[in-house]
Amino acid sequence: MITVPGIRAVTELLRANPSQVKEVWLAKGRTLARLDEVIQICEKEGIPVYFKDSKDISLLLPKVNHQGAVAIVSEFKYTSFDEFVKNVRSQKEGTIVIALDHITDEGNFASILRTAVFFGAKGVIIPKKRSVSVSAQVLKRSSGACFYIPIVKVTNMARALEELSRQGLWIIGTSPEAKISLYEFDWDRDLVLVLGNEQKGIGHSVQKVCHEIVSIPVLGAIDSLNVAVSAGIFLSEIMRQRLKG
Amino acid sequence: MITVPGIRAVTELLRANPSQVKEVWLAKGRTLARLDEVIQICEKEGIPVYFKDSKDISLLLPKVNHQGAVAIVSEFKYTSFDEFVKNVRSQKEGTIVIALDHITDEGNFASILRTAVFFGAKGVIIPKKRSVSVSAQVLKRSSGACFYIPIVKVTNMARALEELSRQGLWIIGTSPEAKISLYEFDWDRDLVLVLGNEQKGIGHSVQKVCHEIVSIPVLGAIDSLNVAVSAGIFLSEIMRQRLKG
Repeated sequence: MITVPGIRAVTELLRANPSQVKEVWLAKGRTLARLDEVIQICEKEGIPVYFKDSKDISLLLPKVNHQGAVAIVSEFKYTSFDEFVKNVRSQKEGTIVIALDHITDEGNFASILRTAVFFGAKGVIIPKKRSVSVSAQVLKRSSGACFYIPIVKVTNMARALEELSRQGLWIIGTSPEAKISLYEFDWDRDLVLVLGNEQKGIGHSVQKVCHEIVSIPVLGAIDSLNVAVSAGIFLSEIMRQRLKG
Repeated sequence: MITVPGIRAVTELLRANPSQVKEVWLAKGRTLARLDEVIQICEKEGIPVYFKDSKDISLLLPKVNHQGAVAIVSEFKYTSFDEFVKNVRSQKEGTIVIALDHITDEGNFASILRTAVFFGAKGVIIPKKRSVSVSAQVLKRSSGACFYIPIVKVTNMARALEELSRQGLWIIGTSPEAKISLYEFDWDRDLVLVLGNEQKGIGHSVQKVCHEIVSIPVLGAIDSLNVAVSAGIFLSEIMRQRLKG
């Protein structure tokens, strides 16, 4: 049994991935307005809600700040690409999706998932082959991030990106060689941020699908960053521009 | 024998840490203006320069883009705090120093070193106890970054920061709980960026030395980032503001 505690985490999980949730526990006697959405989604999706004594929840989850809300998740499930496209289409503006073009290090993957959730990205796309996937290690190292964001496996990354492009998303690649600096690029658009393999970067066929390729300007003696650090820097700059806008 | 190849890397290494360099190899017949500084520093510091056939360098470093410049480093050496303070004092404006208040994960340390060098930070300070240090793993995983930036071990982090404060540097802490957003903070000052332990954050005595504490605004269901990712986000924002200014 995997538990996801906390009001915000439960809400996000239900919004993003209701099919992952087996049941929800809420502390008795707390009629918080913040929980209305949780109850609504559970009703709509047919997810049972159990009202428990807050103390009992604390006994089951010692040392966890559960805030009287816990989602029970049975196991990790990938989101299908079709379902994901449908969801993306129904999102309001400001969508960010992350595509990982053959990332191979599990630590990097876990860190990128956590960062993606932190900044409110709407999904992560990975290829079926020659790529990390959601292993026990990744589950553990991502601080549960796997459950807060849809993760989609695709057979052909370039074709998946073409479909998302048809849905109105900009496909923005990243590369140390690109001439456009991320600080100058206008991120105020619905987009897929594409990050490449740790050594080889973004593959040729995926590069061709990108509308633009953007870089982080080098200022020192080393000219490339860890891909998880890059992901954080790109997402932070996107959010900075949006918060400002 | 540890080799550091590339014109920029050799130059940076000599600038930052000449005492680490045992000898320098330069390709014969290349009178690049970009190498003037390398030759000057070697002369000044008494570091022997060997002029070699570019082919011979390539034989010794197969598959490495050495650009006709290689520094030979005997072993890793920490910089003493006194020497570091002297160097910081002689820097022009825009100095960034990174202080790691009891980071314990070697992967995080290696990644922070690489990011610090990428963004041109001037030094990394770590505590002597209950902290990562420059192990063989860190050497390997930091892509040689250990040699491009002075690393200083101190007995008492709070006291070291107080001394740097007296030297005119702002001490800026980072914490998910801080109310000032990094996007709103004015980074245009000489500063020490303080990053805390993976679980506990910045210690109490170090917090007290900080002039300000700044956070990355949370937008999703997870409210903290990996410390190496945070480091990248802070350094990127500092550089963005400076490039703009």
